[in-house]
Amino acid sequence: MSQQAADAIRDTSAPAPSESPGTADRPADRAPDAPEEVRHAVGLMADRARTASRALARADRDWKDRGLHAIAASLDARRAQVIAANREDVAREREAGMGGALLDRLRLDDARVDALIAALRELAGLPDPVGTVVRGQTLPNGLRLRQVHVPMGVVGAIYEARPNVTVDIAGLALKSGNAVLLRGGSAAAATNRALLHLIRDALHGVGLPADAVQSVDEYGREGANALMAARGKVDVLIPRGGRSLIQAVVRNATVPVIETGEGNVHIFLDESASADTAVPILLNAKTQRPSVCNTVETLLIHPRCAAAPAVLRELSRSGVRLHADERARAIAGDVPTVPATEEDWATEYMDLDLAVAVVDDLDAALEHIRRWSTGHTEAILTNDLANAERFIAEVDSAAVIVNASTRFTDGGQLGLGAEVGISTQKMHARGPMGLRELTTTKWIVQGDGHVRS
Amino acid sequence: MSQQAADAIRDTSAPAPSESPGTADRPADRAPDAPEEVRHAVGLMADRARTASRALARADRDWKDRGLHAIAASLDARRAQVIAANREDVAREREAGMGGALLDRLRLDDARVDALIAALRELAGLPDPVGTVVRGQTLPNGLRLRQVHVPMGVVGAIYEARPNVTVDIAGLALKSGNAVLLRGGSAAAATNRALLHLIRDALHGVGLPADAVQSVDEYGREGANALMAARGKVDVLIPRGGRSLIQAVVRNATVPVIETGEGNVHIFLDESASADTAVPILLNAKTQRPSVCNTVETLLIHPRCAAAPAVLRELSRSGVRLHADERARAIAGDVPTVPATEEDWATEYMDLDLAVAVVDDLDAALEHIRRWSTGHTEAILTNDLANAERFIAEVDSAAVIVNASTRFTDGGQLGLGAEVGISTQKMHARGPMGLRELTTTKWIVQGDGHVRS
Repeated sequence: MSQQAADAIRDTSAPAPSESPGTADRPADRAPDAPEEVRHAVGLMADRARTASRALARADRDWKDRGLHAIAASLDARRAQVIAANREDVAREREAGMGGALLDRLRLDDARVDALIAALRELAGLPDPVGTVVRGQTLPNGLRLRQVHVPMGVVGAIYEARPNVTVDIAGLALKSGNAVLLRGGSAAAATNRALLHLIRDALHGVGLPADAVQSVDEYGREGANALMAARGKVDVLIPRGGRSLIQAVVRNATVPVIETGEGNVHIFLDESASADTAVPILLNAKTQRPSVCNTVETLLIHPRCAAAPAVLRELSRSGVRLHADERARAIAGDVPTVPATEEDWATEYMDLDLAVAVVDDLDAALEHIRRWSTGHTEAILTNDLANAERFIAEVDSAAVIVNASTRFTDGGQLGLGAEVGISTQKMHARGPMGLRELTTTKWIVQGDGHVRS
Repeated sequence: MSQQAADAIRDTSAPAPSESPGTADRPADRAPDAPEEVRHAVGLMADRARTASRALARADRDWKDRGLHAIAASLDARRAQVIAANREDVAREREAGMGGALLDRLRLDDARVDALIAALRELAGLPDPVGTVVRGQTLPNGLRLRQVHVPMGVVGAIYEARPNVTVDIAGLALKSGNAVLLRGGSAAAATNRALLHLIRDALHGVGLPADAVQSVDEYGREGANALMAARGKVDVLIPRGGRSLIQAVVRNATVPVIETGEGNVHIFLDESASADTAVPILLNAKTQRPSVCNTVETLLIHPRCAAAPAVLRELSRSGVRLHADERARAIAGDVPTVPATEEDWATEYMDLDLAVAVVDDLDAALEHIRRWSTGHTEAILTNDLANAERFIAEVDSAAVIVNASTRFTDGGQLGLGAEVGISTQKMHARGPMGLRELTTTKWIVQGDGHVRS
């Protein structure tokens, strides 16, 4: 490190740290570096991915779409093999104690294979983000400028034991012209091996490089660590899964990460909200698919909202457990509730549970949201224009909704086509990420001997 | 961490690591965490910045521009104080052995203060990026969508001892509606203190929150470490400085970082390049301002390029030291050269030095660029359309230039107005970053009781 650089991040009057600082000072919750041989092997894998990405970047849309259709056909033809491999994984994990939703997400049956095939074919029907011009002009000096979308290059994906993500991410990466390195978790190892094999065969069959899709699973957790540390070789890392997975990747990766998914979503029922709109919206936002990130988790109620009792009654009738504060319990009357604690405001239930609080006014609602929101989606139900405008302006979330269900925060619903995930960070992509968000841009400058004056 | 999350990043068959892994496994080159009291203090500072950022996000363009003019006026009125504080810094650092370009960059004189004032006034004249609509539509179901640019919120800046950056970043942040936390390095401490004071007074004077601009310098290197670790409180970190500063920030920060600046820039002189365009372009690209990142550092020559001898002769006549490989020395004839080693291909001289290599053909030029480029800017000088197209398609850099000087990779030149830096990464922003790149987006969804079906 140069003296200047060192100066900027340390105070020169403080004692200079040694190159290897004392262990007492080290952050305790970062993953250890992967052993040299694993880093080397993953590095070589990334180099092959880079070479493959160059071919993909030059492949036109027709060619990439042929690749997607070939993967779909291959998955159809080899479905028996894939499902057999999945049975192996499911049996082993059940034996090891996995159950419930986890085991369900691991399972791949005929219907789910059909859904994957349909998604690949739909992806082939979407426009190609590569080559789209962001902006362009001819400068007064005659220089021609354009900024165009180009693939990122090499994308890394770290996800939990959901084998459908393997096909999903491989398809999205291919369509956007990127090579991908996968880390799918050992619980789905047999299924992912079978899928990887057929995807690579399909790519090869249409003349695209098989190394566009590779997996580091053979190196286990060391492979994941090496992937997170492969800055310069991997352009972006997308973790898909629960909060703890995503936080572990954010904490450990030097490769840039796009955070997705966490949604502690709020709806504010303003004084002027009518039961006619509020009841259907709350039922839709809470009960349509409670396990996903755009489902509502906290309802905030204006003390004089006449629609509130009906809303609570209908939610309860639909099987929603209401975790209500004292004032909300008073509104609920004989509708069953459980007392809310502060923990409820922070909880993303992802189930038929809803935290309910009465807040004094719009200001108090905004304050509650600022404190507890994860920045995914918040909605206001109101007939007051000034309050709607303030809510839009002051809520700092990826999506701000007026008088509609929070379930609309979704790439498909918002017209983006396929969805990579929903980003809750502010860099690069915010909210639903489509194919375009898997690209970067390049400035192309064309002159006739132009020099800068 | 949930079992599923743990599974995805480690192999469950491997022994589970303890919560505090053995010190032997820890990465040795990460900065230690800042002490709790510094993290707490910087956290409170970030909270005040967040509150200030909310006021800034709602301030209209006129108000922010009044703030910029007030800072300019205040800098003008207190220039004697600022320059006196700077003399203190310069004297102390000269005493401590600083010299040359470093000492020059630290210095602030009347002319430089004038330049800062002019830049602030120019910034006030630029359009406001906040509120610009990225895309929008009304869906078939009547839902109204728009994705608009909004400020990031809280920006962190870590830079070397260049006090002009303090004013520069404060102005850019204000115009884009962001609050900023600065870490300017102890060498410029007195100057930065004087600047911070007058900036905050100026903001206060027009009714904008003074806490929109704060500094962590009082905590020295611990302040920088705390800033880098303030994920969730600081939205983005922009390091400005040399390679080692930027790499240290990238390695240590959990806050998302935008990498800027490193430019190992190439020009490929194709067979069909004419001396009429090649000579002025090379002279411009190398000699106009050799210390900046868009200056050319390596010239690659096609073996049959007739213009090459004239180009080398004119570069040498202009004082450029040519670090040439064997074949390039043969072309140079009696033009003085020094032998190039592999290190020259990797070097960003930022001086009147140029590495020169003869490459077999366009493929070899592309291969050389792939190996050594930092992804900033590369140019081809050619009259061959197919080669120009291949160069544009296959070079993976922020800017790809045909028949013009590499000096055009610059926010001002490309019409972006003020420049935050030149990003050499692919996430969020690539190439010159203007005010728009200091914003994120928000989806605004408006319905009339819409639910998802």
